[in-house]
Amino acid sequence: MKPVEWLDNRIRIIDQTLLPSELRYLDLTDYKDMVEAIKTLRVRGAPAIGIAAAYGIALGAQRIDADTPDEFFRSLQQVFDDFARSRPTAVNLFYAIGRMQHAVSALNDLEKIRQALVEEAKRIHIEEEDATRRLSEYGAELIRDGFTILTHCNAGPLATAGYGTALGVIIEAKRKGKKLHVYVDETRPLLQGARLTTWELMQEGIPATLITDSMAGHFMHRGTIDCVITGADRIAANGDTANKIGTYSLAVLAHENQVPFYIAAPMSTVDISIKSGNDIPIEERKVDEVTAIAGVRVAPDGVAVANPAFDVTPHRYITAIITERGIIRQPYDFD
Amino acid sequence: MKPVEWLDNRIRIIDQTLLPSELRYLDLTDYKDMVEAIKTLRVRGAPAIGIAAAYGIALGAQRIDADTPDEFFRSLQQVFDDFARSRPTAVNLFYAIGRMQHAVSALNDLEKIRQALVEEAKRIHIEEEDATRRLSEYGAELIRDGFTILTHCNAGPLATAGYGTALGVIIEAKRKGKKLHVYVDETRPLLQGARLTTWELMQEGIPATLITDSMAGHFMHRGTIDCVITGADRIAANGDTANKIGTYSLAVLAHENQVPFYIAAPMSTVDISIKSGNDIPIEERKVDEVTAIAGVRVAPDGVAVANPAFDVTPHRYITAIITERGIIRQPYDFD
Repeated sequence: MKPVEWLDNRIRIIDQTLLPSELRYLDLTDYKDMVEAIKTLRVRGAPAIGIAAAYGIALGAQRIDADTPDEFFRSLQQVFDDFARSRPTAVNLFYAIGRMQHAVSALNDLEKIRQALVEEAKRIHIEEEDATRRLSEYGAELIRDGFTILTHCNAGPLATAGYGTALGVIIEAKRKGKKLHVYVDETRPLLQGARLTTWELMQEGIPATLITDSMAGHFMHRGTIDCVITGADRIAANGDTANKIGTYSLAVLAHENQVPFYIAAPMSTVDISIKSGNDIPIEERKVDEVTAIAGVRVAPDGVAVANPAFDVTPHRYITAIITERGIIRQPYDFD
Repeated sequence: MKPVEWLDNRIRIIDQTLLPSELRYLDLTDYKDMVEAIKTLRVRGAPAIGIAAAYGIALGAQRIDADTPDEFFRSLQQVFDDFARSRPTAVNLFYAIGRMQHAVSALNDLEKIRQALVEEAKRIHIEEEDATRRLSEYGAELIRDGFTILTHCNAGPLATAGYGTALGVIIEAKRKGKKLHVYVDETRPLLQGARLTTWELMQEGIPATLITDSMAGHFMHRGTIDCVITGADRIAANGDTANKIGTYSLAVLAHENQVPFYIAAPMSTVDISIKSGNDIPIEERKVDEVTAIAGVRVAPDGVAVANPAFDVTPHRYITAIITERGIIRQPYDFD
């Protein structure tokens, strides 16, 4: 089951908005459909967004009708720009765009440029897969037999490549023979925990208990939770981490209850150009994600809504960051 | 607009499960319908549950067919027991049952007993109304002009009598001419914040911003929130407070961000028989409150769910408890 797959001049994705009730694959042949798929969360999860954008750029390049490299690059810039605007918080997007730009900066033969873009996208995919596999192995060492782990949003195979990040660590610990139980925050507004994480855990045969986001603190306070693991959408040079809205609250609650709080993310999620979390842009999404659930209106007409998709967790609350280079602890200095 | 009203041998309630899309009144003539209305949250909110149970007991007593006081009291005990089982965490229920039992303990004329029960229920209603009015006045002194206040669940007119508790304080501050803005947690699973609190605030002309429960910490960390006010379902002798699930998390987050955290509740919510929060029973509700929203399934079939309706906030996180006797601060000692 691959969230994103390159099939020569088209990209196959799973439409994650339909899960778990329907597993539908979409074949995209226009890069603008991939931009739209990222915006609407058909493809989501920081590493998966990076891979999807890289393939999307390669796809867009195939269709550019140009006579000269200059003309080609002008059109390619438009493709880069369209992807850059799709999810402002996810740094893997900008990482992928940067890699793709660099891969063709010295070329001037149109066919070679197109080919180099496809190859670079495939390389990014393979590297991410490898990174999540390795970080899952490192992270699994932090999980003791019998642990009950809390996770938020979805950072599993669907969100990445391979095993996933936060869920990758959990799945790898299970495969090493450890007995585990996972508490899953439903993750309002778009319910990635309820819809995707529970589904992935059930497929792996790992016992899962679904809770609302508001229950996580209660179970930490009661001593039910041995550690918290989430993914990340962008990590600043000092370790401050942007992740799905609600992550900051979990980190504070874990800190207050002496529960270890781990972030699992590939190095492609680290943005050393950003010194602290204060400078991470926070995507604000549409109000109807909050006022309606599964198409059913749940609030009065005309009510004002705030809908930040992410929050920033200061590094002091993060016990360790699990990467493919190993487990990194405070003081964080990715610079 | 009254959530519960006695109309001689029947009780009129607002069906709060249909709000805000529909304002429907139900006339109940069988006490078992009131027990069901409390269980299913057609009537909800700690003070309103107390009033509803008192009227429900009075209603049940009218229908008891007995020849002797002994026979009558045996049947009345069944009525008490049915109400006692309806919402185990809400102490106002047990307070109302105790008051009703006491009101008739010395009587042995069936007509006088029936009449005394109606009168005692009306007295509880008037006293609660008066208590929430007075605590709202005390609490309003804590709210400064220009404050942005966060609240959770619904503790407004619908949940109580008069102004409400947490919302009563806010509404009274507004009426005293203070400019306010209220952030409203949607309050999963049953969305009382999204459905009821936003609606009540809009009716009062108080600007409200709806957020998901997971966003509250983010806005506290950003400095948006000047104070947090919630109601309570039961307060132990040491000030530990049971309230809607998610309240504990808000209190910890407020503490971490130096935001004052207030509980507003009438003294009828204090249970001095319970020394600390550890002894407060926590109601566990049905899994489909979590797995489905407004009738739409949002999680895979067969997933395990935890659904505690309340959590307990240790007194050390509570800046003050606002009651009709004034504003009570640490150390709390209601004993």
